[in-house]
Amino acid sequence: MKHISSRSNPEYRQLLRLAEGRHGAQAVLEGLHLCQEWVAHYGAPRYALFDEALLARQQDGELGALFGALGAAACATCEPALMRALSPIGQDQGVCFLVDVPRPPRPERIDADCLWLDRVQDPGNVGTLLRTAAAAGVGQAYLSPGCAAAWSPKVLRSAQGAHFAMAIHEHVDLAAERARLAVPLLATSLQDGVSLYARALPGRCAWLFGNEGRGVDPALLQLADLRVFIPQAAGVESLNVSAAAAVCLFEQRRQRLAAHGVQVP
Amino acid sequence: MKHISSRSNPEYRQLLRLAEGRHGAQAVLEGLHLCQEWVAHYGAPRYALFDEALLARQQDGELGALFGALGAAACATCEPALMRALSPIGQDQGVCFLVDVPRPPRPERIDADCLWLDRVQDPGNVGTLLRTAAAAGVGQAYLSPGCAAAWSPKVLRSAQGAHFAMAIHEHVDLAAERARLAVPLLATSLQDGVSLYARALPGRCAWLFGNEGRGVDPALLQLADLRVFIPQAAGVESLNVSAAAAVCLFEQRRQRLAAHGVQVP
Repeated sequence: MKHISSRSNPEYRQLLRLAEGRHGAQAVLEGLHLCQEWVAHYGAPRYALFDEALLARQQDGELGALFGALGAAACATCEPALMRALSPIGQDQGVCFLVDVPRPPRPERIDADCLWLDRVQDPGNVGTLLRTAAAAGVGQAYLSPGCAAAWSPKVLRSAQGAHFAMAIHEHVDLAAERARLAVPLLATSLQDGVSLYARALPGRCAWLFGNEGRGVDPALLQLADLRVFIPQAAGVESLNVSAAAAVCLFEQRRQRLAAHGVQVP
Repeated sequence: MKHISSRSNPEYRQLLRLAEGRHGAQAVLEGLHLCQEWVAHYGAPRYALFDEALLARQQDGELGALFGALGAAACATCEPALMRALSPIGQDQGVCFLVDVPRPPRPERIDADCLWLDRVQDPGNVGTLLRTAAAAGVGQAYLSPGCAAAWSPKVLRSAQGAHFAMAIHEHVDLAAERARLAVPLLATSLQDGVSLYARALPGRCAWLFGNEGRGVDPALLQLADLRVFIPQAAGVESLNVSAAAAVCLFEQRRQRLAAHGVQVP
């Protein structure tokens, strides 16, 4: 098994570049939970790096089990200081994977609930939106160019594993994708629209949320089948995009539960 | 009018310390919007610092109007580089205030909607929670020790002005505060509780949300009149605390609107 003791090791430098937020076709996964999920869904990573000292201490634990499942030939170890340098919060997570970003096949026809994001820039927002959508039972996400990279470290951290509950499509031309939609497209809008609570929501739909400052692109907004607003108190700023999405997605979930006989007031 | 050209100026150093996240009885407000709101609600700040060049260019604009309202004797100017150094995102906001953190009088009896936060650590979460509560029409917040400082720069930025729509009480012993509550205390809980959608919510209540990782302190949870959970999809992580609060607060708002005759499905 290979042991890395220098920052100039090429595999380590690649992990570090990705951990620092650069991204592309590959991503770095930090920590036991994300790495376990990766193995469960996609099998072996391209590269696996373990903290030598932590691995020695946790040989009989989950870290040791993950190492054992991959096999020593597929893994490398390193010093704790090198592992800590990979973490944006300076915590030694014990294990890091280098992986190829999954590119799930684009469905010809989108007939399930899905999340559409138009230029949502903040990685924390993108991660929280994915986490909220997964919790609401939404299984697909479509991200326009200009959104934070879905497999970047900050998004992965905020999403808390939602990446493994959803098919995430990035760099999607949402206006063009509209033609594939077999469910209504709903957008939140401050300018016009109907109250979220004014009518029954579709059983299935695509929910479109926009940029933190500018909202949904006007041309895209015109393609929506329904524009809704969340009735809020007067004289205060509108909701953050993640909070707005939580309200919308769970209002739909509430209505769906009610339609299936779950008692609601 | 005083002009500051050095980082070693004592007033500037105090602003910088606060802008870097240290906090206490004073806070720094950055940018036109927050500073305007401060003047509208609390009058003159303890200290006001303007970017000299921006002020000269915007003499007839809102920045100039704010400067005029305070009077030259109460203001200082500085170089753009010094102003940029005060911003956590390196943007020159044009104006910074040093203010005394408002300490609103604690009501003897809490009979209105309120937000209770137990050790919510992340400043972005605390800010989003305040913003969401303000948007839902909640006018009071009670923060336990261990919460991010409400008037710290990151919380102010996430809250987008909610600080001026709410009375914010910090360092509150929530268990002791329970005795002042004249409305039911509702807490979100994963362990037990009833579905958020299973029954009518109280017309007014205190909503209690807990730490990102550990949730609400168990002893505090025991003091709740009702524990609710948000029914979510199986096999995924629970909602982020800010998203959970958005779902709860707006479900209560939906029920209230319905009770007042606003049509809901």
